[in-house]
Amino acid sequence: MPDKSFQDYYPDAMAHCYGCGRLNEYGHQIKSYWDGDESVCHFRPKPYHIAIPGYVYGGLLASLIDCHGTGTAAAAAYRAEKRAMDTEPAFRFLTASLHIDYLKPTPLGIELEIRAQVKEIKGRRVTIEEWINADGVTTVRGKIVTVQVPDQLVQELMDAKK
Amino acid sequence: MPDKSFQDYYPDAMAHCYGCGRLNEYGHQIKSYWDGDESVCHFRPKPYHIAIPGYVYGGLLASLIDCHGTGTAAAAAYRAEKRAMDTEPAFRFLTASLHIDYLKPTPLGIELEIRAQVKEIKGRRVTIEEWINADGVTTVRGKIVTVQVPDQLVQELMDAKK
Repeated sequence: MPDKSFQDYYPDAMAHCYGCGRLNEYGHQIKSYWDGDESVCHFRPKPYHIAIPGYVYGGLLASLIDCHGTGTAAAAAYRAEKRAMDTEPAFRFLTASLHIDYLKPTPLGIELEIRAQVKEIKGRRVTIEEWINADGVTTVRGKIVTVQVPDQLVQELMDAKK
Repeated sequence: MPDKSFQDYYPDAMAHCYGCGRLNEYGHQIKSYWDGDESVCHFRPKPYHIAIPGYVYGGLLASLIDCHGTGTAAAAAYRAEKRAMDTEPAFRFLTASLHIDYLKPTPLGIELEIRAQVKEIKGRRVTIEEWINADGVTTVRGKIVTVQVPDQLVQELMDAKK
């Protein structure tokens, strides 16, 4: 793994997300990386992220798919432009739609692997397929459609931070 | 509103969910009620449930749709059997699939209204459409397919609690 994750490149003004912002002290602070043409993120749910005893609650799994997806979308946009992630303008993506299939219960108490594949980059829209592995078994599949944050909003957020 | 919410009727053994379990001290502890043919839940996100400044992060919104949906599915199953929610056997539903459309950013700092309509009850499967209103504006639409927890698993969970 490289030293820095996708989320480590988010500008400070856009690094507060509960799911993926490195500046959100209460949040999940997920870290995503390229692994060849796929991206990967590892996350160990807390004991209280429970659905029924022994299993992870679905809202967390949706959140992992969501934030690993928007992070992967940003990384894919840089890759498509052959730009490093520390160059400007900064890319950030928001979720337009999220679909999750819970294939089987996801066991609690182990580290989960969230993986993603970029399916399409079309203008400002990036579509990504994802899945979650628990101890080698895929328990969740997801699809996310993300849209690049409008340039003007990025600029407003960056300016507000100064 | 009646005194007791749907979630207040969950058996103790199935009341630990981070999203909706009344026994999860770290969780959201959402409360859902009938409002005519729709169900409704009110929830005020915490300041740290942020996406970008001023807006709620999508994973929480997905979680609210998820748990208000499974609660509504249980309530609908009792209604279909013309049974009170404190009678046995207890109904609990798990999510098979979840679809969320983020129509516009959801403002942070206000109470949100999550509403649901039961679209279909077919065997052990209940399909529900939902939406989230922020200050009268619908910002999120969702659809959830839920499946009744297998009787044997319910029994195992109840027995494990004894």
